[in-house]
Amino acid sequence: MLEKNTNSQDFTLLDAVTWNDQGLVPVIAQEVGSNDVLMMAWMNRDALLETMRLGEAVYWTRSRQKLWHKGEESGHTQKVKEIRLDCDGDTILLMVEQKDGIACHTGEHSCFFLRWDSAQSTWVNESKGHQ
Amino acid sequence: MLEKNTNSQDFTLLDAVTWNDQGLVPVIAQEVGSNDVLMMAWMNRDALLETMRLGEAVYWTRSRQKLWHKGEESGHTQKVKEIRLDCDGDTILLMVEQKDGIACHTGEHSCFFLRWDSAQSTWVNESKGHQ
Repeated sequence: MLEKNTNSQDFTLLDAVTWNDQGLVPVIAQEVGSNDVLMMAWMNRDALLETMRLGEAVYWTRSRQKLWHKGEESGHTQKVKEIRLDCDGDTILLMVEQKDGIACHTGEHSCFFLRWDSAQSTWVNESKGHQ
Repeated sequence: MLEKNTNSQDFTLLDAVTWNDQGLVPVIAQEVGSNDVLMMAWMNRDALLETMRLGEAVYWTRSRQKLWHKGEESGHTQKVKEIRLDCDGDTILLMVEQKDGIACHTGEHSCFFLRWDSAQSTWVNESKGHQ
């Protein structure tokens, strides 16, 4: 499957990434403008190539073991403005425009709506739907 | 090793986390104020407990297989202002104050100084030391 999509450009892109032993790399999606961290997901080589081709985030779902064009069902796609890589090549940072401002499958802006309250020794749910 | 550190509070903290099959969870460090994503690292249970105890980020280095109090050698510690968890509990987001503004072992502010330039089909090194 890889061969048909790749060319020398793609290999330059792909070769800089340190893929784990499952052929995956963790990907942080951060919103352009607000700089909010929206979510963390995973990509394999095909997912990164598809992300490049579409200009929208395509991840690899480990639970369903398939490519996942984020928002393909919900409509909450992520337009990729920038792809960044860390110093040892084992994490990708995507700068995205989040369609409708909703990244999380729960309907929240960000997936990180649980905050540890050390005074109360509990996780506080800061989602808008939770009072 | 775990027993001596834990109490019911800690278990509440720990139990909300979905640890992977190596007992680890990916952790994103984001700078308070700028909202810059500084780095991504890993924690095991002990690392998270130590982070709570010290109020500074303690990770688990997979390469050296030990706890790593970030900045213990460089001085570039991370004061933890907030611990957040994502919707499925498998990623932690730390909001930190980065000592000296330097998170990366290369001396850069953030580890994510490589940017993919699709027009040039190359990774551009945006580190301050690289012209």
